[in-house]
Amino acid sequence: MKILDFPTGPYPARIRIAIAEKGLQSRVQFETVDLYKGEHKQPAFLAKNYSGTLPVLEMDDGTFLAECTAITEYLDALDGEPILTGVTAREKGLIHMMSKRAELELLDAVSVYFHHATPGLGPDVEIYQNPEWGLRQRDKALRGMRYFDSLLRDRAFIAGDRFSMADITVIGGLIFSNIVKLALPQDCEALAAWWVGMQARPSVRNRVTMSDKPRPPV
Amino acid sequence: MKILDFPTGPYPARIRIAIAEKGLQSRVQFETVDLYKGEHKQPAFLAKNYSGTLPVLEMDDGTFLAECTAITEYLDALDGEPILTGVTAREKGLIHMMSKRAELELLDAVSVYFHHATPGLGPDVEIYQNPEWGLRQRDKALRGMRYFDSLLRDRAFIAGDRFSMADITVIGGLIFSNIVKLALPQDCEALAAWWVGMQARPSVRNRVTMSDKPRPPV
Ligand SMILES: N[C@@H](CCC(=O)N[C@@H](CS)C(=O)NCC(=O)O)C(=O)O
Ligand SMILES: N[C@@H](CCC(=O)N[C@@H](CS)C(=O)NCC(=O)O)C(=O)O
Repeated sequence: MKILDFPTGPYPARIRIAIAEKGLQSRVQFETVDLYKGEHKQPAFLAKNYSGTLPVLEMDDGTFLAECTAITEYLDALDGEPILTGVTAREKGLIHMMSKRAELELLDAVSVYFHHATPGLGPDVEIYQNPEWGLRQRDKALRGMRYFDSLLRDRAFIAGDRFSMADITVIGGLIFSNIVKLALPQDCEALAAWWVGMQARPSVRNRVTMSDKPRPPV
Repeated sequence: MKILDFPTGPYPARIRIAIAEKGLQSRVQFETVDLYKGEHKQPAFLAKNYSGTLPVLEMDDGTFLAECTAITEYLDALDGEPILTGVTAREKGLIHMMSKRAELELLDAVSVYFHHATPGLGPDVEIYQNPEWGLRQRDKALRGMRYFDSLLRDRAFIAGDRFSMADITVIGGLIFSNIVKLALPQDCEALAAWWVGMQARPSVRNRVTMSDKPRPPV
């Protein structure tokens, strides 16, 4: 299968990390879509993903799968041994809740800030910006960091006592925060400690070198 | 288990429909949280769901589960016989993609329109509005309807040939569109026909009467 991505992008990172955690590296090929040239807003790409975002997984039969959560569900179910999305009803529910919350309250919020209240991908790509909305989302992301910090004061991972898709989504959020220079609030000690641990995981540390076509940071 | 909801709300509808499709009515109790009074923004509720939204499922052990997708995953996995979220990797991936797309491109877009470019839940609850953003999201939702219409020209259901969580999310989008008087574009014939079929399903038709505390429409 093929992954259409941008090697240093925060959402593509979610899938690169999932691939490495599942040990699927040898089964995927990466193909870069240049966000800074707006390739993802061209008709050829929109036919693959209506929403015009990366990453997209292309199955061997040509089916396109967009949305990180959906791609992660797919990859995790491939071998019938889910390690990222939960096995019991309770695990599945909690992992999906926390991953969605990490999108709403952190990753997606930072993304809106980037696209609406900073130069984002540049004037040719960012044809509509709403800076007031972007700044609101930045503040929401900072509150989100405090929320995840509070969670991590009494658990090892975002959705409980095991690494899961929810951790990966928060990692995506902190990768994006780093790109837009949104620092962790000083008092988020539990989140900072968890982040050090996450960055030490080979899946996180080596994710960009998985690609054969390195590019400048998003 | 208990569902904190608002009987006529479009997101709570997703869970009411899932419960009926799974035949779980006898195992749940509903408890109304009054959105128009802003109960969902009070500390007592925020402790149950950080994001301050309905629905929330309360498990028998007191664990709270928010986010429709997560609650649906939970309910669907309870009996080990998933009928809404897919069994194979491919089904899971496609259902999650389409359900997420239905949020991004329709349901969530209509929600932002409602909260930002209409009186929404009233001045006491809508303490910040960004009407320009709201109107953009309304237009996005209308484009989303056309997209789902185009899909339904050559398939019976949103994620393929079986009813799934993805259909439920689009149903939520059309319930919300109806509330805010956003009509289906005239030429969306396939979507309109599918919508007639969906409204005939007992899970959709009887969803509000499942509650013991009926309220005025959101
Ligand atoms: N909901 C999508 C979001 C993906 C996303 O926003 N990806 C970024 C790349 S890091 C993108 O394509 N941004 C381009 C844009 O929004 O214009 C997912 O979970 O996959
Ligand atoms: N992402 C949430 C969204 C839920 C949602 O927005 N629910 C509405 C009720 S229909 C709500 O609580 N709105 C109140 C608000 O946003 O102020 C989910 O999927 O459950």
